[in-house]
Amino acid sequence: MTGTTGVQDGESVTLELLKQKMADFAKERNWEKYHSPRNLLLALVGEVGELSEIFQWKGEVPKGLPDWKEEEKVHLGEELSDVLLYLVRLSDMCGVDLGKAALRKIELNAIKYPKPSSE
Amino acid sequence: MTGTTGVQDGESVTLELLKQKMADFAKERNWEKYHSPRNLLLALVGEVGELSEIFQWKGEVPKGLPDWKEEEKVHLGEELSDVLLYLVRLSDMCGVDLGKAALRKIELNAIKYPKPSSE
Amino acid sequence: MTGTTGVQDGESVTLELLKQKMADFAKERNWEKYHSPRNLLLALVGEVGELSEIFQWKGEVPKGLPDWKEEEKVHLGEELSDVLLYLVRLSDMCGVDLGKAALRKIELNAIKYPKPSSE
Amino acid sequence: MTGTTGVQDGESVTLELLKQKMADFAKERNWEKYHSPRNLLLALVGEVGELSEIFQWKGEVPKGLPDWKEEEKVHLGEELSDVLLYLVRLSDMCGVDLGKAALRKIELNAIKYPKPSSE
Repeated sequence: MTGTTGVQDGESVTLELLKQKMADFAKERNWEKYHSPRNLLLALVGEVGELSEIFQWKGEVPKGLPDWKEEEKVHLGEELSDVLLYLVRLSDMCGVDLGKAALRKIELNAIKYPKPSSE
Repeated sequence: MTGTTGVQDGESVTLELLKQKMADFAKERNWEKYHSPRNLLLALVGEVGELSEIFQWKGEVPKGLPDWKEEEKVHLGEELSDVLLYLVRLSDMCGVDLGKAALRKIELNAIKYPKPSSE
Repeated sequence: MTGTTGVQDGESVTLELLKQKMADFAKERNWEKYHSPRNLLLALVGEVGELSEIFQWKGEVPKGLPDWKEEEKVHLGEELSDVLLYLVRLSDMCGVDLGKAALRKIELNAIKYPKPSSE
Repeated sequence: MTGTTGVQDGESVTLELLKQKMADFAKERNWEKYHSPRNLLLALVGEVGELSEIFQWKGEVPKGLPDWKEEEKVHLGEELSDVLLYLVRLSDMCGVDLGKAALRKIELNAIKYPKPSSE
């Protein structure tokens, strides 16, 4: 399937690319009528719920998930993606440039939480 | 920090860039110890809550949010970004390549929901 | 099944009764070890996700859900209940008297948002 | 308003009582127009977010929250209550008898997850 996306790995994946793919996907299936902001927001909440279910009975889990089976990590990647894709689509339907907003938010966070002075 | 982002708009923003910025941000502030998967997941849920609060008393809102004030849209962009940034960081701490996973998920969705045959 | 619960309707259902039933349920199945506060919180988030899925593609829906099929309303009741039951269990595992806290919160809300003076 | 609740503790708090209090509260403030099902659902999601924020940077916490300050536990009780109160109001606006539905759901769960045979 790598060939169809035209990428070798995830490094070059822009939010703009995902936005365009989601827009095409909806248009091709005549789903645009369903993609109102609040519909998408609730769909996002649904996916956050599915993401939470993966972690719910596990107690604390260490970084990198060393004890998880490969299939669990694949499933996790799918749920993380579902959250991302609805977030990208919601942003688009709200007229928000998500990549630009995210860079700006990191800068605001850096002002709110300055680096320790020793650095 | 504006100079360090080196972008005029959001078009070239990759998930990889955001991942790196979040990693640097945490390291510079000695926050890595807080960024366990479940801590980040709950932080993500918190931000989804703040995103929902923006929409909660509005009834249905049309695409593009034509009646929203500029400051409301800026605030919305910040909350959408907070969700994204924790999602990117959570994915990183779980060892998931989010960009790659998202492209794969779109392909899986295309198999699950084929385009109508006329196309 | 009414006979087994010993109630004719839901009017007399106290939070204390639900707390006790959840405690018995967990103890009988040796599930207490799983019911840490954060596990239960994530389970709650999962159920909120399922609740949201019911509403996600519907656009705004009127009070009373007049156009919903009976089976949809039954399903909705189950998801609302799942949220409630994990909330009750989470409160218990945190040592919070939920009924007492809820009455207190209503009083705090009444102070924060006074009734209009004409009343 | 303490006098009007007429309870010393939370043991006798029924879902029906909370439903009635929420209905009165909304009516007295002319808020009924805002209490559509999806508005209330998003308000509920917002409160679940605030609840999650309390737990987000803590790592796993033991049952009973032995190390929490009294004020933290009071705050937790408020957020748990906010979730409950919107859940009660949402159920009411959907025409669902939440107490009845919850008892039924516990019975369904008991069928789905039978007690171990030794009992």
